[in-house]
Amino acid sequence: MGTPISELGEFRLIDRITSPFPKFHNETIRGIGDDAAVLKLNSENYTIITTDVLVEGIHFNLVYTPLKHLGYKAVAVNLSDIAAMNGTPKYITVSIALSAKFSVEAIEQLYSGILAACEKYHVELIGGDTSSSMTGLMISITAIGEVLPQKVTYRSSAKVGDLICVSGDLGAAYLGLQLLEREYKLFKDTPEIQPDFSTKEYLLERQLKPEPRFDILKTLNDAGICPHAMIDISDGLSSEINHICTKSNVGAKIYAHKIPIDTVTSITAEEFNMAPETAALHGGEDYELLFTVNADHLNKLLTIPSISIIGMITEAHEGIKLILQGGNEVDLSTKGWDAFLS
Amino acid sequence: MGTPISELGEFRLIDRITSPFPKFHNETIRGIGDDAAVLKLNSENYTIITTDVLVEGIHFNLVYTPLKHLGYKAVAVNLSDIAAMNGTPKYITVSIALSAKFSVEAIEQLYSGILAACEKYHVELIGGDTSSSMTGLMISITAIGEVLPQKVTYRSSAKVGDLICVSGDLGAAYLGLQLLEREYKLFKDTPEIQPDFSTKEYLLERQLKPEPRFDILKTLNDAGICPHAMIDISDGLSSEINHICTKSNVGAKIYAHKIPIDTVTSITAEEFNMAPETAALHGGEDYELLFTVNADHLNKLLTIPSISIIGMITEAHEGIKLILQGGNEVDLSTKGWDAFLS
Repeated sequence: MGTPISELGEFRLIDRITSPFPKFHNETIRGIGDDAAVLKLNSENYTIITTDVLVEGIHFNLVYTPLKHLGYKAVAVNLSDIAAMNGTPKYITVSIALSAKFSVEAIEQLYSGILAACEKYHVELIGGDTSSSMTGLMISITAIGEVLPQKVTYRSSAKVGDLICVSGDLGAAYLGLQLLEREYKLFKDTPEIQPDFSTKEYLLERQLKPEPRFDILKTLNDAGICPHAMIDISDGLSSEINHICTKSNVGAKIYAHKIPIDTVTSITAEEFNMAPETAALHGGEDYELLFTVNADHLNKLLTIPSISIIGMITEAHEGIKLILQGGNEVDLSTKGWDAFLS
Repeated sequence: MGTPISELGEFRLIDRITSPFPKFHNETIRGIGDDAAVLKLNSENYTIITTDVLVEGIHFNLVYTPLKHLGYKAVAVNLSDIAAMNGTPKYITVSIALSAKFSVEAIEQLYSGILAACEKYHVELIGGDTSSSMTGLMISITAIGEVLPQKVTYRSSAKVGDLICVSGDLGAAYLGLQLLEREYKLFKDTPEIQPDFSTKEYLLERQLKPEPRFDILKTLNDAGICPHAMIDISDGLSSEINHICTKSNVGAKIYAHKIPIDTVTSITAEEFNMAPETAALHGGEDYELLFTVNADHLNKLLTIPSISIIGMITEAHEGIKLILQGGNEVDLSTKGWDAFLS
């Protein structure tokens, strides 16, 4: 039957299947291997293009995901990839495949969320495709944006000595998902029990309605800071720092107690018998920005409350290390959410 | 349960869900409603963007579709939309969702077909996404191309008095599918019988390995002919001429006996007790080009063997008519392949 995909993993599969593809065009600044492709279609801006697919039963469960939120999130996660290039989103195409269980009104709900995201981020819907499917719902979005050539942030441009920064806080989206899954299981067993999410609203919002951090890009720009390397945290801090270090050929030190974690996240992690740092490192879906900045900007960064300095870029041979509170170091191996292993 | 999608149909559903979306950007020349969106990202060319999704069980059956052919076709149908804008394809992104039944080797087969199409048409793979799915395979491709502003061909620019032309021949892809389905059913009942496709290879090739007609664009360009309106025939001649007439606010006369049909198509249609014209009008998947041309070009067009003149654009109030051999007229109502009705 051949090699199971799980044996290879998503990232190695992508490397293997895409490596034979040739380049044909001089306008291609970056192809596969970053948050988005970068094309030079005119002399002023780079055009950036990214695509993501969301599949029912894999990326979302419609029992507890309102269709409007799903539409919003499907756009948001694509725009987050544009943000990770330090770009401005401009256009999307949306393709959906859906089974006969979906009514016209259900599709309108989905598109009302897509519309809300388009309006919030001034993005135009310029095309798409609609198809039936044998089972369930699939949403495939391509986002197109632009960035000034001198501002584009690749995964590959981290420099030794850079400060490693993260926006917002981490782990909340993962715990929001755990809460929804727990209440869903309770509901299946005893349908008369109503779920109680009081005090946990923040976690649900982070899971169901993530926002791309264009506000952080503006804050950095206003402060005169242009990050060296940047990536959005879709698969978890651990996986993303590994991407930056591999592509930049550097190492990293991350200080565990500097990772920003909201109080509700910490309390809820403990309810699930999980270290909050585990959710922050491996949870994913926070769609915060992870970026590296020249250490000269330290004073400026310290004045920005929505940005945390969590570590430093080191030489490649020093590896990727998590420094625990007592000073012990542990190897920060990739344990990001892998679509084929979860 | 709400309104079933089949009650509305694909095209009305798309109109309904996309009409509330606002425009934000001056660079948008055309958004939704043609074979591709058209953006003015630089002063020389228009950038054209199109997207299509193929779903297992809806658009293809892996029992008789080799994965390499499927990969090739998935690219070809997107490039055909670029051809319909009179454009040149340059880039694609490819997203796939697939269940655990697919091995690494199977995915490599699929991508070998994608690669073959990229190499043939000098198209670069610049991005994508890979996901698992609960069942089956889904391929979503976005293609990006370019066209000179004075050469772009919309559905909406047909003029009264234009000649209606079609490239190649029609109906073969549909009969190829009927043959494959028939042999598949025979095989299910009596697995010891080997399918016999001798003399029918042309029909299978048209179904399994369609080619976008960039050669026709070159022929027209070399002859100094720029079509007024153009569309590719994915859903059948009848559906496509309806799109052109509706968008251009014109009518059309199509002469049934002028529709180009290959001899093998005609013979096989009769084996299936079907008028060959029915396959040509409603079959779809031929990916030929349907276009309208100023009647001044008649003499030039008559010298091009791969192009057939099949009718004329008329005033809108004259409707869309099929003229039969005896001279009788029938209304050419839309009976194109509709993903939600089939």
